Amino acid sequence: MELLDTISSPEDLRRLREDQLPALCRELRGRIIGVVTQNGGHLASSLGVVELTVALHYVFESPAEPIVWDVGNQAYAHKLLTGRRERFASLRQQGGLSGFTRRDESEHDAFGAGHASTSISAALGLAEGRRLRGQRGKVVAVIGDGGMTGGLAFEGLNHAGTLERDLVVVLNDNGMFISDKVGAMSAWLSRRLTGRGFNLARRRVKDLLTGFPRWGDVALDWLRRGVEGTKALLTPGILFEGLNFQYVGPVDGHDLPGLVALLRRVKLLDGPVLVHARTVKGRGLSCAEDDPRRFHGVAPYCPDEEPGAAPAHPNPSFTAVFSEALVELAGRDERVVAITAAMPDGTGLAAFAGRFPERFYDVGIAEEHAVTFAAGLACEGRRPVVAIYSTFLQRGFDQLVHDVCLQRLPVVFVLDRAGVVGEDGPTHHGQLDLCFLRCVPNLVVLAPADGDELRSMLAWAVAVGQPVAIRFPRGAAPAGAPGAPALQLGRGRRVRTPAGRPDLALLACGHCLDPALEAAERLRAEHGLQAVVADARFVKPLDRELVLSLAEEAGRLVTVEEGALEGGFGQAVAALLLEAGRPVPLRCLGLPDRFVPHGRPEELRRLLELDGPGIARAAARLCGRG
Amino acid sequence: MELLDTISSPEDLRRLREDQLPALCRELRGRIIGVVTQNGGHLASSLGVVELTVALHYVFESPAEPIVWDVGNQAYAHKLLTGRRERFASLRQQGGLSGFTRRDESEHDAFGAGHASTSISAALGLAEGRRLRGQRGKVVAVIGDGGMTGGLAFEGLNHAGTLERDLVVVLNDNGMFISDKVGAMSAWLSRRLTGRGFNLARRRVKDLLTGFPRWGDVALDWLRRGVEGTKALLTPGILFEGLNFQYVGPVDGHDLPGLVALLRRVKLLDGPVLVHARTVKGRGLSCAEDDPRRFHGVAPYCPDEEPGAAPAHPNPSFTAVFSEALVELAGRDERVVAITAAMPDGTGLAAFAGRFPERFYDVGIAEEHAVTFAAGLACEGRRPVVAIYSTFLQRGFDQLVHDVCLQRLPVVFVLDRAGVVGEDGPTHHGQLDLCFLRCVPNLVVLAPADGDELRSMLAWAVAVGQPVAIRFPRGAAPAGAPGAPALQLGRGRRVRTPAGRPDLALLACGHCLDPALEAAERLRAEHGLQAVVADARFVKPLDRELVLSLAEEAGRLVTVEEGALEGGFGQAVAALLLEAGRPVPLRCLGLPDRFVPHGRPEELRRLLELDGPGIARAAARLCGRG
Repeated sequence: MELLDTISSPEDLRRLREDQLPALCRELRGRIIGVVTQNGGHLASSLGVVELTVALHYVFESPAEPIVWDVGNQAYAHKLLTGRRERFASLRQQGGLSGFTRRDESEHDAFGAGHASTSISAALGLAEGRRLRGQRGKVVAVIGDGGMTGGLAFEGLNHAGTLERDLVVVLNDNGMFISDKVGAMSAWLSRRLTGRGFNLARRRVKDLLTGFPRWGDVALDWLRRGVEGTKALLTPGILFEGLNFQYVGPVDGHDLPGLVALLRRVKLLDGPVLVHARTVKGRGLSCAEDDPRRFHGVAPYCPDEEPGAAPAHPNPSFTAVFSEALVELAGRDERVVAITAAMPDGTGLAAFAGRFPERFYDVGIAEEHAVTFAAGLACEGRRPVVAIYSTFLQRGFDQLVHDVCLQRLPVVFVLDRAGVVGEDGPTHHGQLDLCFLRCVPNLVVLAPADGDELRSMLAWAVAVGQPVAIRFPRGAAPAGAPGAPALQLGRGRRVRTPAGRPDLALLACGHCLDPALEAAERLRAEHGLQAVVADARFVKPLDRELVLSLAEEAGRLVTVEEGALEGGFGQAVAALLLEAGRPVPLRCLGLPDRFVPHGRPEELRRLLELDGPGIARAAARLCGRG
Repeated sequence: MELLDTISSPEDLRRLREDQLPALCRELRGRIIGVVTQNGGHLASSLGVVELTVALHYVFESPAEPIVWDVGNQAYAHKLLTGRRERFASLRQQGGLSGFTRRDESEHDAFGAGHASTSISAALGLAEGRRLRGQRGKVVAVIGDGGMTGGLAFEGLNHAGTLERDLVVVLNDNGMFISDKVGAMSAWLSRRLTGRGFNLARRRVKDLLTGFPRWGDVALDWLRRGVEGTKALLTPGILFEGLNFQYVGPVDGHDLPGLVALLRRVKLLDGPVLVHARTVKGRGLSCAEDDPRRFHGVAPYCPDEEPGAAPAHPNPSFTAVFSEALVELAGRDERVVAITAAMPDGTGLAAFAGRFPERFYDVGIAEEHAVTFAAGLACEGRRPVVAIYSTFLQRGFDQLVHDVCLQRLPVVFVLDRAGVVGEDGPTHHGQLDLCFLRCVPNLVVLAPADGDELRSMLAWAVAVGQPVAIRFPRGAAPAGAPGAPALQLGRGRRVRTPAGRPDLALLACGHCLDPALEAAERLRAEHGLQAVVADARFVKPLDRELVLSLAEEAGRLVTVEEGALEGGFGQAVAALLLEAGRPVPLRCLGLPDRFVPHGRPEELRRLLELDGPGIARAAARLCGRG
């Protein structure tokens, strides 16, 4: 019987002797590795915080002292210790545990997450809410050094420093989330007091003073304080002390007795405290320690395969097509620059980074800055390609509107992970992009149906000289049919034209073309219904002529999009038909007005009736069949 | 002849002798005060940077060395010095100069703005783009201490510290934008090395060490570095030095010779430099210096009136109704808390702040944090009301989706300035909120037609226990008709029912009810057409029954919304009609798919055909008349 099997809540954990905790950590690691290699998940980050998790639950009394995990993808040990041990094998499975924290999963998940940098703000809200209710005790936020680069984290720190509530921010500094080239703060955190740095600082001050006659007094004052300051900046705590946090650390985040003693001490302090813990991502699994980037998120694997290997598929993914196409484009057009917000691998920009390091920017988890920085680059004749997952671009929405589209700057937004993404669930599904992009003036919105289309859309977008967004899903890209017409602004294309008079038309947005074509075959085979199938290509501007001619010709229309129906593509088609006086029976298929849970993409599409059979059923019903 | 009249470009300015500059500053102040008191505008902030503007243009060579103004509402002196002197009287007038920087207005407006905190990111993009083009020279960003509280500014600093381009960030620290209670960084900036602070720091370190046996080594190390650090934090430059900026200052931002000498010196430094200039908002106009908050934005005034006084109107504004209603609600319900992002006056929350200071939060210019902080408060049983202008909520979009709506937390978003706002123009019009809110699951979206409706919607929203957004425009609220039915989830109301069989129905969203009613009268009087008029109340969920019965009864439908048509309310109505098999002729009226320029709201509504006559014309055309 393992220790872990005796723990159904943090209370049970707190009954253990301190010398039992290292054994518990070993068990937690075993459990995490076992399940994640089966189900996929965030391995390296979860392994890195095992001791931290145990120490936090040993010292603080969740749920009375809530712990807020930033992003929440590192909270596997937390889940195992908070009553979810028996369900842990269902991690990231349909109907099973979420891969992130969720308030509806446990009272110990004080705040749900999935996107980075929210924990300080949320924990501050919890702390303030508790104060208003007259409740005492700490609130803990655990945030990575990556999450700390997000502006939201800074906003939270800034406010927390004023409110002075009993907030403990644990900075889980694995120094790995982003490369050491990203983020001055990151460099700062890892800086040590060295002779070289100090001398450099001195020289700077001297440089500044040379030939500076008028400013004698100010300069002298500056010198006095500057030298002190510049020396002191070489300790990592100043940023936080300056923001009115008490800074404690850095401490070894794998030294359990040390962590417990430190946290006990911190528990006695009043006001906001920042605990700086240094951890090793992937700790305890040598291959993950050696290559944490590869083990950040791993797919489930068969015993013979290496962990992290993607399941084989005949076609390359949309991501891979984008990755290759961009490198090719950039080779021909030196204006092309590429920007990622801490996702060089996930977005496929790593290839570009390797080939054109001078034109590649990883800005850290800072989507807002990524977009405005791109706007600045575009002002100087560059053609920035900003690759951000659909759901994370929500973070840069105002910048997209205000800095790019209002000024009609030629920035290309590439939104991977549009539509359902699968096991990562509702925080990661790209559900809303069609809606929040369609309303923005000056922006062209494109959705490729296949790899060929993605290639030509990317080339078109870089050339066209105005803001463009291209959205595509996670997963394999259909190869594309030979002989497809060249891309033309605001024009879709017909893909399937039955011989006889059609009974209906299916108008697909992006990657929904494939299931729409499958549906058309089913409609023929099962109901004898003839369907025209078209690929919209342009979500905006809409191909007015195509929509109206499909309606005219087929008399019934079904739109298919993997995005929210409210404010989506189908509603634009509906308004066009009615306002043009061509009111044919219409059915809009897409994502319903609720958050889609996690599960395998194919399974989710089946449940959402966005696969071939689902589309065929809806279309048949529109035709009075089935 | 004034000096200013000889200046048609910054080159002319640079030909002046340094001792002529103070006179030029006096002239600039006179010109600004003269025009702003006529046209309205941002008086205090523009007066505060007159010397800074002159010094920057005297030393740096715009446009070869671009200057990026954060927000851009302080750039009036910049406009006067960059070839727009003769058009300056047209400031904020329809067809005249914008109240902000705009790239299409002058080559000296290196980057357009309106929202805060974008300048560092944009300037860094400019600097990097120039480097890639092989161009040399500085890029300057001027940002206020208010703008510096925005996370985007921090993201920009963090990236700039790594890229090490020749970027000069001028921190225009007027210490006034936000009250001294907001933002730890703000307090930090104004902190001085004092005995008290130093001793406090020492005590903290000692406290931390007491009874800390196991951590001897770490603690001693911490003590050594901590004492140095804590001492040094008392200088304002450390934050920036830590982020790899060379910090210069603080300097008196009104001492012209000093500024010029300092900037000349800064021009010789390599890499990122932060110049910390202390300025006085409203400088040179005693009433504005004394009360800069009142003179932040002023309305045009008649000579007899005081500046800042709003033109009289028989009805209170929507803002005033909200302000009063919230205070009343909060008096009855202690769960109510209120949050603003640096806009206590504009949002009407100042009254709440005065009455319930313990439940009021001004988080600084930090919309992202405002929303996530509210989510945390809601987790603890509070009922947060987050009052953010429509266009600024774009900044908190991801937080609204991810932190509030996904967790179905009872946060009430109050969006003032929805629709056209007038003279502030495209960066401030609330054009997109209906679209970016409608697509978010779990969110109820409300639009009050009048003051009474706003009152009942607010009470309903605070009570209902799920996320709700209420959007209304700037300006006077119609009083509301007595006897309106009580608010009920997802139910609109009929407002006008003609005696005979109606020829059409007008379905208005929010404050478009009033012009829709006016249009109905015109249709009767001018065309003999009978119009039913309804108030949607709920933008989401849509009142399905009302829409279908209006269509059934009137046979033609016109929707009216002051928001983008793409993805808006009308398109939802269109899809409902077609999918329900009730395809009546429809016309959707709203904002077209382009950014709306600045101008008087009434005038803009006339041009956009969203006033009574415009609606009547469109409706008559739908009925085959006119």
